[in-house]
Amino acid sequence: MRTIHVIGIGAGDPDQLTLQAVRALRDTDVFFVLDKGEVKSDLTQLRRDLLDAHVPEGTYRVVEARDPERDRKAGGSAYSPAVGDWRSARAGIYERMITEELGEEQTGAFLVWGDPALYDSTLGILEEVLGRGRVTFAYDVIPGISSVSALVARHRTGLNRVARPVQITTGRRLAEGFPEGVDDVVVMLDAHQTFRQYADQDIDIYWGAYIGTPDEILDSGPIAEAAPRIERLRAEARERKGWIMDTYLLRRNPREV
Amino acid sequence: MRTIHVIGIGAGDPDQLTLQAVRALRDTDVFFVLDKGEVKSDLTQLRRDLLDAHVPEGTYRVVEARDPERDRKAGGSAYSPAVGDWRSARAGIYERMITEELGEEQTGAFLVWGDPALYDSTLGILEEVLGRGRVTFAYDVIPGISSVSALVARHRTGLNRVARPVQITTGRRLAEGFPEGVDDVVVMLDAHQTFRQYADQDIDIYWGAYIGTPDEILDSGPIAEAAPRIERLRAEARERKGWIMDTYLLRRNPREV
Ligand SMILES: C[S@@+](CC[C@H](N)C(=O)[O-])C[C@H]1O[C@@H](n2cnc3c(N)ncnc32)[C@H](O)[C@@H]1O
Ligand SMILES: C[S@@+](CC[C@H](N)C(=O)[O-])C[C@H]1O[C@@H](n2cnc3c(N)ncnc32)[C@H](O)[C@@H]1O
Repeated sequence: MRTIHVIGIGAGDPDQLTLQAVRALRDTDVFFVLDKGEVKSDLTQLRRDLLDAHVPEGTYRVVEARDPERDRKAGGSAYSPAVGDWRSARAGIYERMITEELGEEQTGAFLVWGDPALYDSTLGILEEVLGRGRVTFAYDVIPGISSVSALVARHRTGLNRVARPVQITTGRRLAEGFPEGVDDVVVMLDAHQTFRQYADQDIDIYWGAYIGTPDEILDSGPIAEAAPRIERLRAEARERKGWIMDTYLLRRNPREV
Repeated sequence: MRTIHVIGIGAGDPDQLTLQAVRALRDTDVFFVLDKGEVKSDLTQLRRDLLDAHVPEGTYRVVEARDPERDRKAGGSAYSPAVGDWRSARAGIYERMITEELGEEQTGAFLVWGDPALYDSTLGILEEVLGRGRVTFAYDVIPGISSVSALVARHRTGLNRVARPVQITTGRRLAEGFPEGVDDVVVMLDAHQTFRQYADQDIDIYWGAYIGTPDEILDSGPIAEAAPRIERLRAEARERKGWIMDTYLLRRNPREV
């Protein structure tokens, strides 16, 4: 039976790989890589570096495919269907790669950025491939250090405050309002610096871009003061590198606790 | 200057240590261990096993202290003050350990279960020690695989659904009502199987106890069917081992998405 590892590789720092992930890398015959285009080529390079560092050369193959274009312009309620179409397109690619490139007794792997559990489509796509019923395989998931964990570690703060909840959400959701019932909110996938919307509130922000990589930038403080700084840092970095990945924690009423 | 590593060691599987954590372990002269009493002695043993596996003998010392008794009986609104008192008591112990046991040029470490960012007091206590101003040190935080990441990896599911938020909360909070504005909720620190309160709703539960350890138990399914099973499993396991650590994800209206 074909076996597939879905391996969380951490969010940028190659040292944040777990021993379990290293073992899984060494156990793999075929790595499947979906190229997301030039802007993310740094990330593809990081994956290659991980393999070079941890797996003896000549013991594995890398199979590359081009990521189907996602309809990024579809806004508002069109978001979910677009994701759905894209997921189906991806499922087709995964199915072909697994069927054609992975021998019946071989082990394949997908290297997933951060933790496969957070805002990643790999598990959903593999379930869709299995559901189609044209190829069977066993698979397991190896958790990774998420950008969320990496962010708060660098800021040396917790995700939650004592006995209180924390929510992890997207920039798009945050634009609709500050989540109810929580005062600690981590925001991912925010292309629009939605934190600016809350700059007049009593909130501390803990922000990080390219966390764990040599380009890492961190900033934090009361949001009114930090927001303009972060806006500038973010614009400069984005200009310089051509792409940016950032995450932040909003902590409301910090002085209350 | 004294240096301290706060090292996330994962939530049970010694292989879920990161390479960065292994490096930090090897870099440490003095490990500080707070013994939480007999019921948790398995966990203390796991910490020792990690050191034995990764750090050459004779290169480090272990300093143990007895954890101050926490007033576990204080319920309701008394919770926060009790935590505060206990935190101060702990800060006193940490301060003494650091001052008396760590040389000026040495490196100490606290080994934190899971990820130091989730429901752990170490960072707060170190800040309190620094705030008292009687000892200075530099410290860094090494993120770990949390029981939350480990849970969903074992169930091969994500934390969030596509473009949706996830909340991490406590059993105590869940008892007050299902969190607003989210349909995916991870519950930790639940001594009362609060999920039973929602057994009549359209919710899937993904549950795990002693995740990552040889005693690991997993169960999942529609909550109406799974709740009685989990209740039984949990009671048996607790009886057998004398203590239990469990975490679960509640996913509301699973068929809607
Ligand atoms: C598609 S999600 C994948 C998240 C990933 N699975 C994880 O666990 O971090 C991409 C988002 O993760 C965040 N992210 C990932 N890596 C990051 C990094 N090194 N620094 C800052 N943010 C990062 C950003 O918010 C980005 O928009
Ligand atoms: C004080 S909190 C510490 C959490 C830890 N910092 C983490 O990242 O997992 C303790 C709670 O974590 C959860 N937990 C920790 N380890 C676990 C394990 N191996 N299996 C299941 N739950 C676990 C339980 O909900 C427990 O009540």
